[in-house]
Amino acid sequence: MPRIVVDVMPKPEILDPQGKAIVGALPRLGFTAFSQVRQGKRFELSVEGEVTEEVLAQARTAAETLLSNPVIEDVVNVQVVAD
Amino acid sequence: MPRIVVDVMPKPEILDPQGKAIVGALPRLGFTAFSQVRQGKRFELSVEGEVTEEVLAQARTAAETLLSNPVIEDVVNVQVVAD
Repeated sequence: MPRIVVDVMPKPEILDPQGKAIVGALPRLGFTAFSQVRQGKRFELSVEGEVTEEVLAQARTAAETLLSNPVIEDVVNVQVVAD
Repeated sequence: MPRIVVDVMPKPEILDPQGKAIVGALPRLGFTAFSQVRQGKRFELSVEGEVTEEVLAQARTAAETLLSNPVIEDVVNVQVVAD
């Protein structure tokens, strides 16, 4: 069944307390290579049948209206994954 | 600055109440194309300098130990994104 993956990240200017917590914990666990961490969301929408242009348009609109909060988040990716 | 993207999803056999809530809300908003939704997490780790094999190995280990809970979640993707 094909899936559409939607990735949502906090806008760059928005404070991301979860990312901050992770970037603080990483060096304490020996991971010293990373200077910043941002945490966002990933959605997988399963599609019955074919992913038509109309289905993809529905996914894009749902991503902007239901899956993300456009005041504080950006939809960074809407992508079809076949499997 | 290059980034490493880590995607974490709930294991297929684990109940995902957020995904269930979204799949219930979609048709009420007119989005009828989707039969299932799973919600996971996306992390962006910024790397100072070059992404060497060692940095990527650190990211993979951090993904399995700090960024995901291996009892209920799978790391589905660890990928370098240049920009």
